[in-house]
Amino acid sequence: MRDPRYDILFSPMAIGPVTAKNRFFQVPHCNGMGHAMPLAHAAMREVKAEGGWAVIATEECEIHPSGDVSPYVEARLWDDRDIPALALMCDKVHAHGALAAVELTHNGPTASNLYSREVLIAPSHQPSKYGYPAQARAMDKQDIANYRRWHREAALRGMRAGMDIIYVYCGHDLSLAMHFLQRRRNHRTDEYGGSLDNRVRLLREVLQDTKEAVGHRCAVAIRFATEEMLGPAGIERAEAQDIVGMLAELPDLWDVNVAAWYNDSVPSRFAPEGAQEPFIDFVKKTTSKPVVGVGRFTSPDTMVSQIRRGVLDFIGAARPSIADPFLPKKIEEGRIDDIRECIGCNLCVSGDNTITPIRCTQNPTMGEEWRKDWHPERIAPAKSSMKVLVVGGGPAGLEAARALGQRGYEVHLAEGRRELGGRVTREARLPGLAEWARVRDWRLGQIRRMNNVATYLDSLLTAQDVLDFGAEHVVIATGCHWRRDGYGRTHGEALRDFVDNPAVFTPDDIMDGRLPDGPVALYDDDYFHTGSVIAEALRKAGREVFYVTPDDTIASWSAHTLDYRHIQWRMAELGVEQVVSHSITGFADGRLSLEHAWSGKPRTLDCASVVTITSRLPDDALYHAIAAREADWADAGIRTVTRIGDALAPGLIAHAVYAGHRYARELDEPAIDGVPFKRHFHTADASDILKP
Amino acid sequence: MRDPRYDILFSPMAIGPVTAKNRFFQVPHCNGMGHAMPLAHAAMREVKAEGGWAVIATEECEIHPSGDVSPYVEARLWDDRDIPALALMCDKVHAHGALAAVELTHNGPTASNLYSREVLIAPSHQPSKYGYPAQARAMDKQDIANYRRWHREAALRGMRAGMDIIYVYCGHDLSLAMHFLQRRRNHRTDEYGGSLDNRVRLLREVLQDTKEAVGHRCAVAIRFATEEMLGPAGIERAEAQDIVGMLAELPDLWDVNVAAWYNDSVPSRFAPEGAQEPFIDFVKKTTSKPVVGVGRFTSPDTMVSQIRRGVLDFIGAARPSIADPFLPKKIEEGRIDDIRECIGCNLCVSGDNTITPIRCTQNPTMGEEWRKDWHPERIAPAKSSMKVLVVGGGPAGLEAARALGQRGYEVHLAEGRRELGGRVTREARLPGLAEWARVRDWRLGQIRRMNNVATYLDSLLTAQDVLDFGAEHVVIATGCHWRRDGYGRTHGEALRDFVDNPAVFTPDDIMDGRLPDGPVALYDDDYFHTGSVIAEALRKAGREVFYVTPDDTIASWSAHTLDYRHIQWRMAELGVEQVVSHSITGFADGRLSLEHAWSGKPRTLDCASVVTITSRLPDDALYHAIAAREADWADAGIRTVTRIGDALAPGLIAHAVYAGHRYARELDEPAIDGVPFKRHFHTADASDILKP
Repeated sequence: MRDPRYDILFSPMAIGPVTAKNRFFQVPHCNGMGHAMPLAHAAMREVKAEGGWAVIATEECEIHPSGDVSPYVEARLWDDRDIPALALMCDKVHAHGALAAVELTHNGPTASNLYSREVLIAPSHQPSKYGYPAQARAMDKQDIANYRRWHREAALRGMRAGMDIIYVYCGHDLSLAMHFLQRRRNHRTDEYGGSLDNRVRLLREVLQDTKEAVGHRCAVAIRFATEEMLGPAGIERAEAQDIVGMLAELPDLWDVNVAAWYNDSVPSRFAPEGAQEPFIDFVKKTTSKPVVGVGRFTSPDTMVSQIRRGVLDFIGAARPSIADPFLPKKIEEGRIDDIRECIGCNLCVSGDNTITPIRCTQNPTMGEEWRKDWHPERIAPAKSSMKVLVVGGGPAGLEAARALGQRGYEVHLAEGRRELGGRVTREARLPGLAEWARVRDWRLGQIRRMNNVATYLDSLLTAQDVLDFGAEHVVIATGCHWRRDGYGRTHGEALRDFVDNPAVFTPDDIMDGRLPDGPVALYDDDYFHTGSVIAEALRKAGREVFYVTPDDTIASWSAHTLDYRHIQWRMAELGVEQVVSHSITGFADGRLSLEHAWSGKPRTLDCASVVTITSRLPDDALYHAIAAREADWADAGIRTVTRIGDALAPGLIAHAVYAGHRYARELDEPAIDGVPFKRHFHTADASDILKP
Repeated sequence: MRDPRYDILFSPMAIGPVTAKNRFFQVPHCNGMGHAMPLAHAAMREVKAEGGWAVIATEECEIHPSGDVSPYVEARLWDDRDIPALALMCDKVHAHGALAAVELTHNGPTASNLYSREVLIAPSHQPSKYGYPAQARAMDKQDIANYRRWHREAALRGMRAGMDIIYVYCGHDLSLAMHFLQRRRNHRTDEYGGSLDNRVRLLREVLQDTKEAVGHRCAVAIRFATEEMLGPAGIERAEAQDIVGMLAELPDLWDVNVAAWYNDSVPSRFAPEGAQEPFIDFVKKTTSKPVVGVGRFTSPDTMVSQIRRGVLDFIGAARPSIADPFLPKKIEEGRIDDIRECIGCNLCVSGDNTITPIRCTQNPTMGEEWRKDWHPERIAPAKSSMKVLVVGGGPAGLEAARALGQRGYEVHLAEGRRELGGRVTREARLPGLAEWARVRDWRLGQIRRMNNVATYLDSLLTAQDVLDFGAEHVVIATGCHWRRDGYGRTHGEALRDFVDNPAVFTPDDIMDGRLPDGPVALYDDDYFHTGSVIAEALRKAGREVFYVTPDDTIASWSAHTLDYRHIQWRMAELGVEQVVSHSITGFADGRLSLEHAWSGKPRTLDCASVVTITSRLPDDALYHAIAAREADWADAGIRTVTRIGDALAPGLIAHAVYAGHRYARELDEPAIDGVPFKRHFHTADASDILKP
């Protein structure tokens, strides 16, 4: 079954007093459920353990109310009442032979204490990191002693919950142990500040404390940032090498990556698989302890190479484990083609940042394990032998066809174009988005091995075609198109000068290869990444680009996916000129008229053309044509006609995949009129939290 | 007791089938606790009922998962399992003779569905309001029928929970009933779009549905926005007049205000008491039903005037009821001077916006009613006869002295300056912040009537003075000062060119009346409102101002307090030139050197001076001098010396007041080592949620 060249990935390895059954290590990652949704959180972790990961870690785990990161919802071990939620996770992880790990942290000046209202603490007086208008105070010796005690107590609670590995967190610029290392945050003049020895002191003490407290039963791991990408203002590789040298044998495991989070979990648009190697490759040379690192690894050959070349002992993964919780099992079973590879879109990250449950473009079951009982690999068998016609082979149609096929339905997928994938195929050709084609490729790979799913290209159907087809269920997944008239958040009606203006383009034109003449004003009323991708495409085609937006920054929503800073850097590199806080009042004779959002001052830009990115309209003509003939459905044998994905409501690829999956799950199931998922409620009695 | 001229405020008035005992009406307001913290929420509402408000409303209440506003935490009535949380609130409100009201809403395209993952719905296809990258789909007739049914079912659930008033929400650009009215959101061509009659149809139907469902027992209120301040792009007064005319007698109560939220709850810096009158004064002339409106009313004379002049029947309040839950009772008992007036800082609003419990600058017990058992009017009596010396008469010291005095301690408050109030007094002199002095004035008013609290001005104490004083407990509340060296979020060490540079100023200089020569570069690494207030002061003094910030917008955190848009408009009006996304690399010879945050490009600004607003340092020299003499404490009779407020960690005025209050609450109480408040936990069993 398994290719022998992957055997090394399945060799067990000791981590201090515990042993991991293989080299697949789900490193800590947040998920927007955390302590607020303990049953949902535990079920999500369990699915990964079932999928073969040898180690399953929590996200950051707060150890004390003075390190409260609200509103972000992570793990919590403030007192014993927090143990049951994590014990549940441990039980579920252990049930599949995996180890459980908890990442203890006190976030110091990067906490908020918005919920606890405690005073923030830090090595020295300093502003809080995230803009919150309260400063952190310099810790005195008693504070340091308290912090060490809180950490020790949390480690003991973690052990009592059943954790096998206790992390000391020193990464992402998000923990006191790291803040003491940083010269910019640590201006102390006592034995905890100044020299590197002094700045390392607290980290060493906390590692020792943790070993003493739980080292007899638990492995003690360190998560350590080797590079902050801030130049001399931050921790750099050279200093990190010294630190790893000083503490080399103290922890049982080194989990190493770069800081801050946006440099660690870089979207695929800005970093390829394995991009962290140059920053962490020294670690294994410096310690005899096992080393885990990340790199959005989805290729087993790359993984093997990391181990063979002595870079890593464990293949760390957050995003790849979200896109495919069964990644290890699939390698183990020789089912490489079944791996659902992460596309690096970072929508998963937006869950934490928007304080809502994690979702995944590739894996629509992510976050639904408990509340909808959705499993990434299993699905209920078909409850009827009905035939389903799916019209449209984009992400919604492909996923509907695939999941219906998995259930055992007879599925016919008709695509109007000569290629499958719809928007995925088109968008993946834009600069930096090539990996997004994995959404299409995985589904096509699955469908091609199903003999109950037929696909038809170049098959633009009419309503009559659909009626004639003889399917009981019809799924309309015909996608959408960008509006050309400027309607969107800012303009509540069409911009007159845009209508029927051949110098006004949309992203669809760019994807169709119709490039505007320059200079181009790109008008972004969408606020996510599309504007910046189109700007990049236009610059690469040699056009001068003005990036105009009514918003006060470009690409504001992309902060939630960690794209934001990379987009800003990329736009600066490409020489894209930003014209923020401006809406459009007219466009004629090569002149775009603008109005400032706050001052109302007019401004003009000389430009040959405009690319307008404001909003989209469903391509739902076919749906409406069929709906208009509802009287004919019964004769045609049609029972239901359903729009899904962009054809219903334009959204992200993730929404389309989810819609396709949901359609497949719900076919032949009784309709739910009320809340279609299980919920958590809120109680003051911690003993209630594990009720099913 | 009560002044007879306020009698009218205490005359009962019928609202449909129910009767309010007086004219004080706590209109719906969010609080960051909502459905996630039902016990905390109910306790907060109860305190207001106890304080004499005749009507206590919830915040927005979601009626269906397709109108999920996550991550914002409001009320929820998705199904019967949500009834107990609101029933608890009703019971507590009824216990004090008040009426309970629930504001039902479906937020349509202004929802997120980030939690429910349902598809957003709207009158027509359109982008979601808050940047979320998914569009809302146009509702079809079945959707409209469903929406009406969901609303009716939620109304019935509200009635079963015990609500006396059921709101139909049509305000703030936040509910489908309003979205159907808006031409920019409603492009329908059926009987629900086009003419005003058509656009009003759904609102009328929902009002009728609600009356039919619950009108026999509950009053049906409408919350209606009369003006969006968007010109012809939004609802304007003229159209609103038509709408009120069309529906005049249909609801039992008109609750009227302006939209959106930032125009409704305007900070005191930008709008005085009663500012909405010109926008809503027509309503009472158009309907015979009672009318409630808001205006941050804290003056009983203004309230009486509103009623006598026929503007309002009920004095609506959100913020004034937060700052002083006992406002009605104090008027009723003739204790006008005891009213703790809202200062209009809008920190309360930031709770909802940061998804954490509401807090209040004036009322440190807000949000602590359940979890810390803090009551805004009552406090435990002193447990000893010990003497307390409070050093520093700013907001922390004043509140500590007041609350300790209320407990019955012998308190001595020593202030180094010739005036009390500390930063409050100083900041209140800056443009637009005059009302902030209420923080001082209320406390001084209280203290002056206590014969156990002595205050001393012009009393700068040394450590020896403190030791000699003979107090058992010493509170150091000596405040803080702005750093002059540029250290802050962006610069991890001092800017060399700022040190000892007489052309570099801080906000303290401005408050001390030392104005820089122009042109002035204001360098804001603080990101809240201070930069804009200083810019305004400088412009009013005739200086040319460049507003320089490393952030990509000015005043970013002020979005949480609804200041942001008003600040942008004000800066534009004043002609303040913004230089965003730039950090400072040098300042010499009248030239400020900058570096672009993303491109790294250098830029220079010719300016005579810089005002640097980056971070602050505690004025804690006295504390450290006393701490250094700990060996002498016992002889001096000193048991504890405690820093509070800005002297410990610079923050907002709210943090200082809270610190002073907390100190007073905790004196002579056993120390709490663990979590110092009750918490909510999370369960899947709704029957658990009301356990104490």
